[in-house]
Amino acid sequence: MGKTLTEKILLSHVKEGTLETGKPIGILIDQTLTQDATGTMAYLQFEAMGLARVQNELAVSYVDHNTIQVGYENADDHRYLQTVAAAKGVIFSRPGNGICHQVHLERFGKPGKTMLGSDSHTPTGGGIGMIAIGAGGLDVAVAMAGGPFHLISPKVIEIRLTGKLRPWVAAKDVILTVLEHYGVKGNVNCIFEYTGTGVASMEVPERATICNMGAECGVTTSIFPSDEKTRIFLKAQGREEDWVALSSDEDASYDGLFEIDLSTLEPKMACPHSPGNIEKVSKLAGKRVEQVLIGSCTNSSYADMKKVADILDGHTVAEHVSLGIAPGSREVLLMLSKDGSLGKFIQSGARILESACGFCIGNHQSPGTEGVSLRTSNRNFEGRSGTKSGQVYLVSPETAALAAITGVFTDPLSDHGIPYPKVVHPTQFLVDDSMIVFPPEDGSKVEIFRGPNIGEPPKNTALKEHLEGYVTIKVGDKITTDHIMPAGSRLKYRSNIPVYSKYVFEPIDEHFSQRCTENQDRGKDNFIVAGSSYGQGSSREHAAICPMYLGVKAVIAVSIERIHQNNLCNFGIIPLTFLHEEDYAKFEANDELLLENVKEQIKGGEVVLKNKTRSTEITLCCDITDEQRSMLISGGLLNILKERA
Amino acid sequence: MGKTLTEKILLSHVKEGTLETGKPIGILIDQTLTQDATGTMAYLQFEAMGLARVQNELAVSYVDHNTIQVGYENADDHRYLQTVAAAKGVIFSRPGNGICHQVHLERFGKPGKTMLGSDSHTPTGGGIGMIAIGAGGLDVAVAMAGGPFHLISPKVIEIRLTGKLRPWVAAKDVILTVLEHYGVKGNVNCIFEYTGTGVASMEVPERATICNMGAECGVTTSIFPSDEKTRIFLKAQGREEDWVALSSDEDASYDGLFEIDLSTLEPKMACPHSPGNIEKVSKLAGKRVEQVLIGSCTNSSYADMKKVADILDGHTVAEHVSLGIAPGSREVLLMLSKDGSLGKFIQSGARILESACGFCIGNHQSPGTEGVSLRTSNRNFEGRSGTKSGQVYLVSPETAALAAITGVFTDPLSDHGIPYPKVVHPTQFLVDDSMIVFPPEDGSKVEIFRGPNIGEPPKNTALKEHLEGYVTIKVGDKITTDHIMPAGSRLKYRSNIPVYSKYVFEPIDEHFSQRCTENQDRGKDNFIVAGSSYGQGSSREHAAICPMYLGVKAVIAVSIERIHQNNLCNFGIIPLTFLHEEDYAKFEANDELLLENVKEQIKGGEVVLKNKTRSTEITLCCDITDEQRSMLISGGLLNILKERA
Repeated sequence: MGKTLTEKILLSHVKEGTLETGKPIGILIDQTLTQDATGTMAYLQFEAMGLARVQNELAVSYVDHNTIQVGYENADDHRYLQTVAAAKGVIFSRPGNGICHQVHLERFGKPGKTMLGSDSHTPTGGGIGMIAIGAGGLDVAVAMAGGPFHLISPKVIEIRLTGKLRPWVAAKDVILTVLEHYGVKGNVNCIFEYTGTGVASMEVPERATICNMGAECGVTTSIFPSDEKTRIFLKAQGREEDWVALSSDEDASYDGLFEIDLSTLEPKMACPHSPGNIEKVSKLAGKRVEQVLIGSCTNSSYADMKKVADILDGHTVAEHVSLGIAPGSREVLLMLSKDGSLGKFIQSGARILESACGFCIGNHQSPGTEGVSLRTSNRNFEGRSGTKSGQVYLVSPETAALAAITGVFTDPLSDHGIPYPKVVHPTQFLVDDSMIVFPPEDGSKVEIFRGPNIGEPPKNTALKEHLEGYVTIKVGDKITTDHIMPAGSRLKYRSNIPVYSKYVFEPIDEHFSQRCTENQDRGKDNFIVAGSSYGQGSSREHAAICPMYLGVKAVIAVSIERIHQNNLCNFGIIPLTFLHEEDYAKFEANDELLLENVKEQIKGGEVVLKNKTRSTEITLCCDITDEQRSMLISGGLLNILKERA
Repeated sequence: MGKTLTEKILLSHVKEGTLETGKPIGILIDQTLTQDATGTMAYLQFEAMGLARVQNELAVSYVDHNTIQVGYENADDHRYLQTVAAAKGVIFSRPGNGICHQVHLERFGKPGKTMLGSDSHTPTGGGIGMIAIGAGGLDVAVAMAGGPFHLISPKVIEIRLTGKLRPWVAAKDVILTVLEHYGVKGNVNCIFEYTGTGVASMEVPERATICNMGAECGVTTSIFPSDEKTRIFLKAQGREEDWVALSSDEDASYDGLFEIDLSTLEPKMACPHSPGNIEKVSKLAGKRVEQVLIGSCTNSSYADMKKVADILDGHTVAEHVSLGIAPGSREVLLMLSKDGSLGKFIQSGARILESACGFCIGNHQSPGTEGVSLRTSNRNFEGRSGTKSGQVYLVSPETAALAAITGVFTDPLSDHGIPYPKVVHPTQFLVDDSMIVFPPEDGSKVEIFRGPNIGEPPKNTALKEHLEGYVTIKVGDKITTDHIMPAGSRLKYRSNIPVYSKYVFEPIDEHFSQRCTENQDRGKDNFIVAGSSYGQGSSREHAAICPMYLGVKAVIAVSIERIHQNNLCNFGIIPLTFLHEEDYAKFEANDELLLENVKEQIKGGEVVLKNKTRSTEITLCCDITDEQRSMLISGGLLNILKERA
């Protein structure tokens, strides 16, 4: 029987286990990427492994998250990242060079390769035919050390595209349609594989947009075939030799199918406060808009920006709207400056923001009170913009640009009088890698700079016989890693776990950290009780590291998202789920809990937890791999690696 | 006898008093400008005056300080500023349109006019022949209401320029030379007037650079004549009709003279941590640089930027340096995008920052620990960059650009091999006012937006017969307004006095605010006892408004700085100084005080204060003007204005 593209790539990389849906495997990782927010911890962990140099094919370190740089911590971290990259054989992309996913697609991504990135939007690389997966920094550190990445052999879902997008309907509308269909939960351990005659009509940056935001469905990754469009893209980047044709076999069988006739799609938007809350743009036509922000790893390619420039050309941003534009990379910015697009942005009244993640992670450009903000980015969780009452809608660049001019939600398919901008996909990009620093052959002489914000990566202790403590917090559904570990102005503490830990759950309960510490001081353990989809969103492993630092020993939830579950195990926190969802109601904050003979219990798939306050016993699932079980017993992956070394 | 240019302009604007060195005068103000950080309070105060519309010739409201926008407060404040401007007849310059002083010079400044701005670098307008003075927000509000601005008739110091600057020596080096000569203190109530044959060799933006940074000497303002260069500049801005020839009479007499032969100057720098700490750039040649930032109201004109582009052209920013460039206005940015300069910036590896104050006020781009940062801005106070240990050097754009390429301090006059960029002063600027919102003829229908951060401007009550309360805090010498009213992350509360007041004296005593409130609740008054130079540093009026809100009725100090003393009177707090310095020791925190028959007592120059705790009576000075005495009795200037209306 034929194979899916996913199977082909995974099979050629399996190092441990058997590729069989639901079974754990370990795969070799060809390429790794990190960004600065998760990168410092990843490299500190890599350093802790004691290797002189990274072992995988290609490792790139990007600085794109904290480029606003308030306080000394960020500049110090950038310097640490640059020097540790030179010392360890990692390529370093300087601040200002652009967003990791955009730059990686342009300069390093290769069809058929596996990639692990310490950023949840790493699947962007699927646009160029890679199996590109987001993971915690420690997983990436292990991959850089040549170790396998462990995952569950995924279900492969076919998303079959037919037809062709109409003018004003964009790749963003395709992925919003996918989100409308699959939602933001229940898609764990799946890979979306795009097939069908409609694929050929989509350029690599469009495919990248679709794969990027597949992350919001919670899938392992998404992938497009590598075809003629891929070859043309790579050739335009001056690296045709990296191209190889890749697709699924005609008789491949999939675990599911979703058919999309591209020609029937309409412009859509994700409404507050979830990327899965999809409506047609036309539904809100005429509603007033205060802010429009165009950019982010989802929509900041040259073609996206060129389209926006052509829409804005000759128009002025509405008087009550602030329009910010952040091109995705220095290459894109340079091309826009040469072809006059940047001038068109400025002429229209757009505010030019740095080529970085910026507004998408709430680093700046927070909207006003209840401010309606249209953004081309991928997440609109409540408060992520920096404004709790902010109303963030996720849309295509076309929809965003129109709203900036008209000042209201404007259906791109309506009669607005602005001619459709012909997409220009260059046959030759302005390639210039001068802001990419390649490491010396011998990095042993490089002095690694460590500012005062750089601490040691903390380690857990081996698992105790009994866990005894309290429900230190009980939270609801869809708790994101932004809730657990806030970004924005707190992000600069990411390299300093004792400080960053003070802010765990700050947006929900600012006293959480203090209660944890008090419990720790009394020799008690901390437990987190949560609803469904706990730990969705960003891949930041700090959402596990900092709770670990605060003595959290287990998370008990209705369901836990894939990357976060891995991160919990990596740092020795036991992920538990309710056997019966209604048991969630049987816990309250401050309940006293007892988990006896833990090591023994987690060997089976279930554990029995005593709620001493309620005098009840609840059975919970502990659905983890053997490898993860070992991690929990040893107190985390770093301890295991030490033991094995 | 002939007149100085300063005298000519002041004489034509004097409304109260006589222009005689050292004597108080009130002058009419033609133009006003505000920026967003000080502007919200200025417009709230203007609103409190009850006028339908601003009364002065031209009022412009700029948004240039808080354009990073972390948290809802900034976007809300921008919206308040935009709507109150429309309602009250004020021109509004939108966020992204540029730095107030640069934009004002380009679009609104007129030779011979007076201008008051709620920003200390308002003297930039002197470059175009204005008397442009920085002041507190309430003073600007009064000017917008048509009231006079009170100042002491200044000494006029002649700075006579001869010769011509050599290539690689810049206007910045002229003002650094002036700072080297006059220092940063002791120049109160002086105006620097530039004369001599060297003036004709300098373009308006260069003159503006010099006047801008005169503020660091502490002078009232600086001024250049309006000549042929001024006419050409205004013509290039499409407003030749605003030009008028202005200069001092040949036989004018000055209160002092400093002669500078421009042809002898060398590139200079202000070293950490004072703008008055001047050295030659050559002194540190070869020293490593980590960061270079080009922009700010001092050096971000088109010519400055074009020079930098030509220096960078064909070069790459050194591997260990982060170069950020923030063009001063949208007009400048637009021109740079059209002539290829922006492309040269990007090509070289520069990070393009928004046209705003940004890095200069520590809003972003903080250097790393002990990071050496070369900046073209005007202040390098310790910690102002956001990094306490940051080593900030103030230099010309030429010096900055060279260092960005070489990675080390590089004397522009040394043999570095880079050709000198010919300064290009356009004969036609790309004028485009589409990001400037002109107010409607009738603003009465405009709804003024007030976010939750916008409070009422608090007013004081009329002075009571007796003041009775406690020494709520006793502080030492050299307490700055930064100690009294911290900026940084607290700055966003500037529009909300009840909230901002919680942080009075936060860096010294975080419980001060709470004690004040407790005393107020008990019907008691609060007193501040301080050492010498109380209230030095920034002119922020919040250092008076917030204590007033907390029920502080008097400040008793060894000495009080001039601007802060004015602010105290403006808001009805009595400034008192010890007759005998040793009496400072006769007070302790929490001492109970009684000041009887206050109104009667302050009519004389002295008051007698009873310290009930120590059973002593202390005689204090109350050295204020008659106008200020009226303010104290009425409970502040706002109340007086109400009474007079």
